[in-house]
Amino acid sequence: MIYLNDIKLSKIMKKVLINLTVNKDSVNHVVNSLVETSLRGVDSHGINLFPHYCRAISSGRINKNPNINISDTGVSTSSIDADHSFGHHVGAVAIDKAIKLSEKTGISAVNVKNSTHFGAASYFGLRAAEKNCLGFAFTNADSMLKTFGSTEAFFGTNPICFTAPLKNEAPLCLDMATSLVSWNKLENKKRKNLDIPDTWAFDDEGKSITNPNKAISLNPIGEYKGYGLAMMVDILCGLLAGSLSSKDILPMYTSSIKEKRYISHFFMVIDIKHFIEVNVFKKQLQDIVDRLRGLPTIEQDNSVMVPGDPEKKCYDIRIKEGIPIDEIKYEEFLATSSMFKEVIE
Amino acid sequence: MIYLNDIKLSKIMKKVLINLTVNKDSVNHVVNSLVETSLRGVDSHGINLFPHYCRAISSGRINKNPNINISDTGVSTSSIDADHSFGHHVGAVAIDKAIKLSEKTGISAVNVKNSTHFGAASYFGLRAAEKNCLGFAFTNADSMLKTFGSTEAFFGTNPICFTAPLKNEAPLCLDMATSLVSWNKLENKKRKNLDIPDTWAFDDEGKSITNPNKAISLNPIGEYKGYGLAMMVDILCGLLAGSLSSKDILPMYTSSIKEKRYISHFFMVIDIKHFIEVNVFKKQLQDIVDRLRGLPTIEQDNSVMVPGDPEKKCYDIRIKEGIPIDEIKYEEFLATSSMFKEVIE
Repeated sequence: MIYLNDIKLSKIMKKVLINLTVNKDSVNHVVNSLVETSLRGVDSHGINLFPHYCRAISSGRINKNPNINISDTGVSTSSIDADHSFGHHVGAVAIDKAIKLSEKTGISAVNVKNSTHFGAASYFGLRAAEKNCLGFAFTNADSMLKTFGSTEAFFGTNPICFTAPLKNEAPLCLDMATSLVSWNKLENKKRKNLDIPDTWAFDDEGKSITNPNKAISLNPIGEYKGYGLAMMVDILCGLLAGSLSSKDILPMYTSSIKEKRYISHFFMVIDIKHFIEVNVFKKQLQDIVDRLRGLPTIEQDNSVMVPGDPEKKCYDIRIKEGIPIDEIKYEEFLATSSMFKEVIE
Repeated sequence: MIYLNDIKLSKIMKKVLINLTVNKDSVNHVVNSLVETSLRGVDSHGINLFPHYCRAISSGRINKNPNINISDTGVSTSSIDADHSFGHHVGAVAIDKAIKLSEKTGISAVNVKNSTHFGAASYFGLRAAEKNCLGFAFTNADSMLKTFGSTEAFFGTNPICFTAPLKNEAPLCLDMATSLVSWNKLENKKRKNLDIPDTWAFDDEGKSITNPNKAISLNPIGEYKGYGLAMMVDILCGLLAGSLSSKDILPMYTSSIKEKRYISHFFMVIDIKHFIEVNVFKKQLQDIVDRLRGLPTIEQDNSVMVPGDPEKKCYDIRIKEGIPIDEIKYEEFLATSSMFKEVIE
């Protein structure tokens, strides 16, 4: 593993994107999101995606100078046409709009169509929590989750992100796919020639498997429940925007990188002060979190965690030690620019 | 099994409650909810609860003549003090309020504190979908879900209900606990002296078990994910209302029935027309549903279902054949009133 300094890395990623004539807002949001997400340990949605994004800019899948169009559709709602911008950029525009609307009315919803991969949903949810709001972020994605009762996938791993501010620390952050594990985790096992647990994935007959090479779909959490939650996310994202459903979205890697993907997102924000005094809320949630962490553990060395704790722990380590990437990925970075020679810790 | 006629049953349940001097709105909502829920096959939240509710009225846990107080806290938000009314009643008041608010602003949220068990969340979600809205209904409940990493439960099976209208049939309805199975299902196995699958529940050391008599907590869907979703529901319900968290709510059956439970609910409604023409939405969702039902199945006799399909199938059968209850439960009905002699099909 090679360890990269987050500050140097950010600077050079920004330079590379600016050289590709990507607009400044997109540059800032995509780099901030990728680096923050890698620092938080979510490697599947962090800097590892950077070389792919560079290719998607050059090919035209991602619009480097989009005309992001916001329509106010109600006192508490807006609809955004992303014009195929970086999802990270339009997602930040959308959640910031939702935060503003909720300040006036108590709750808001903003949907986004014609977008691209938006990275980690937590990037948006955390913006809301930092403004003393509850944040929800959803996106649809290409078909990958086994349909309950069928041999085929229809919905994506369509994630749910929920955030809430705490009194003494960074916000609580639940950011979860509706599948039990990610495709990325399965790919890792494949690369190492290892079997997978029989709860992870299914073959083309809908049978659970331990050989990751046979996998064509992922197991939803709680069987029909995860399938139902993924459908809910697709309704909020694709259907409410009159855009594509998961099944009709092109896969990120295996489709032609010139093709647009028409991904949709959905954001909701609740302004806490419309329900309860913010400091009272934050103290009460902190109390709950502290009580949870104090519960008796199964393994003596561990403590009970709340959503976002593994990411906070990882952040504290990586901000000192750097962001690890493997050598193959580092070569991909160097292929986008030789400037990346300077980022090793 | 004894089969009860839903119309006769409704009439007599209403009479019994009126004789107990329960207010008319509560009577209508609780009976409509229980009968509809039983017709839909969700026996854990249907008429089986009626004798328990009668005892909870007599003991004073449920307030038969509550002063339900609605405070408008924002253009899109309201807070309701249930005054310990039937949850079914105050829940209907809350979702109807949320529907009205969303018509004006696009999205709304209404929370409820000082409530009691509200039965099936679908009763509220379906009211929103029937008004061409997307409905969300949540409630907290007493501690029962295993905390990830701990031997103890903290959150309840805190359910999530999501509904959406369809073009050619009753609305889509996802109504799910955040546990893999309900405690009720486990109790059924216990009564029949049967083992349970080792994925259902845990003993007091946090170990998965097959003997239901050793169960002290239920397995969340997707391990830390279901735990996180249950926490999200508790934040939306208990914390946002400044009221009790799951851990501090008295259990429904094993606590003194005189004690109040201080349950909280949370409802959100999205008015579809603020995002897309309602008929377009309904047609597109119907198309998705039809495509899902047409997917290749694993077992040849079955077809793929969407959330709410099992309940619709059950409804069609029970509306003709009656609602089945076992003889012990029927005796409990007769103990509340001899009028129930007339309801057998």
